[in-house]
Amino acid sequence: MSRWEPNARERLARAALDLYDERGFEQTTVAEIANRAGLTERTFFRHFADKREVLFSGGVELQERMVGGVRDASDGAAPMDAVAAGLAAGGEILDERRAFAVKRAGVIAASAELQERELIKLASLAAALADALRERGVAEPTASLTAQAGMAVFHVAFARWVDEANELGLPEVIRESLDELRAVTAGTP
Amino acid sequence: MSRWEPNARERLARAALDLYDERGFEQTTVAEIANRAGLTERTFFRHFADKREVLFSGGVELQERMVGGVRDASDGAAPMDAVAAGLAAGGEILDERRAFAVKRAGVIAASAELQERELIKLASLAAALADALRERGVAEPTASLTAQAGMAVFHVAFARWVDEANELGLPEVIRESLDELRAVTAGTP
Repeated sequence: MSRWEPNARERLARAALDLYDERGFEQTTVAEIANRAGLTERTFFRHFADKREVLFSGGVELQERMVGGVRDASDGAAPMDAVAAGLAAGGEILDERRAFAVKRAGVIAASAELQERELIKLASLAAALADALRERGVAEPTASLTAQAGMAVFHVAFARWVDEANELGLPEVIRESLDELRAVTAGTP
Repeated sequence: MSRWEPNARERLARAALDLYDERGFEQTTVAEIANRAGLTERTFFRHFADKREVLFSGGVELQERMVGGVRDASDGAAPMDAVAAGLAAGGEILDERRAFAVKRAGVIAASAELQERELIKLASLAAALADALRERGVAEPTASLTAQAGMAVFHVAFARWVDEANELGLPEVIRESLDELRAVTAGTP
């Protein structure tokens, strides 16, 4: 087996996710993942620090895209509109990997340890969005509040997108959920 | 030393928090906590399963009060107003224990493990508020979105209340933060 395998990272990630889905995350070994992908454990560890990283390494790109969306929003954009642009940018990359994202969500829902890890990642994402807003000159507590409310929208939209059999893309579900947030916050009788 | 010590639980909790604050959570032993409180380790373990529970056992009452506030909101209350009533009810009990709550927040901020535990507790709280809204007949995704947005408000308000030298009570800071959320969500130019 040669040292450089084409698409090794992607093959390993897909094999890992399939095994986590079939047998559970805890029950799957790196040896089994490598075997399923037709690669060696050594190759696995050239791409991922451990089997959990297969599920969470994509978070770096997600965060970069979301933060980039906030940064690139037009100068006059209100804080919530800048966050909406960030969420939409993040939603686009998940949309491109819908099959992976949906299966990943199921694997995470089945493990308390992975759910905790996901909560921590979402909290980091909220903090990164708040940083990006402050860089745009948004003051506290507006920056933190807008970022956290945005993550609440993302969280709920993501769950709908994963669950629902409809054909809406994630950016569209995020837009709907944000409209819903506007309606519930405005809804004092 | 008699088996039943007056105020043992409270004395242990205060001793534990002081030690966590002075030395760090990881560096404090149950023996030291018991010694500082003038009680035995045996007594500590009659009140708390472990040293982490000293920091998190109050979460049960907080959740009950918040959920009770949502349940007891008037029949015609909009979902966000029912959540606001729940947050205010939770804010009141923290207000009564401000010194403990502020010191506790500092201890948690100093430990990654405790921060993770706190995130998990806040996520459970959001889920409990969403349940309470569904019991009031609020449909999904409105229930989850309102509960999560409410927790975003609580999170930001709590941080302001802990940090600020002002004299505002937590229920008042929560009200201000909710008004701020209404302003940022309405703020499309």
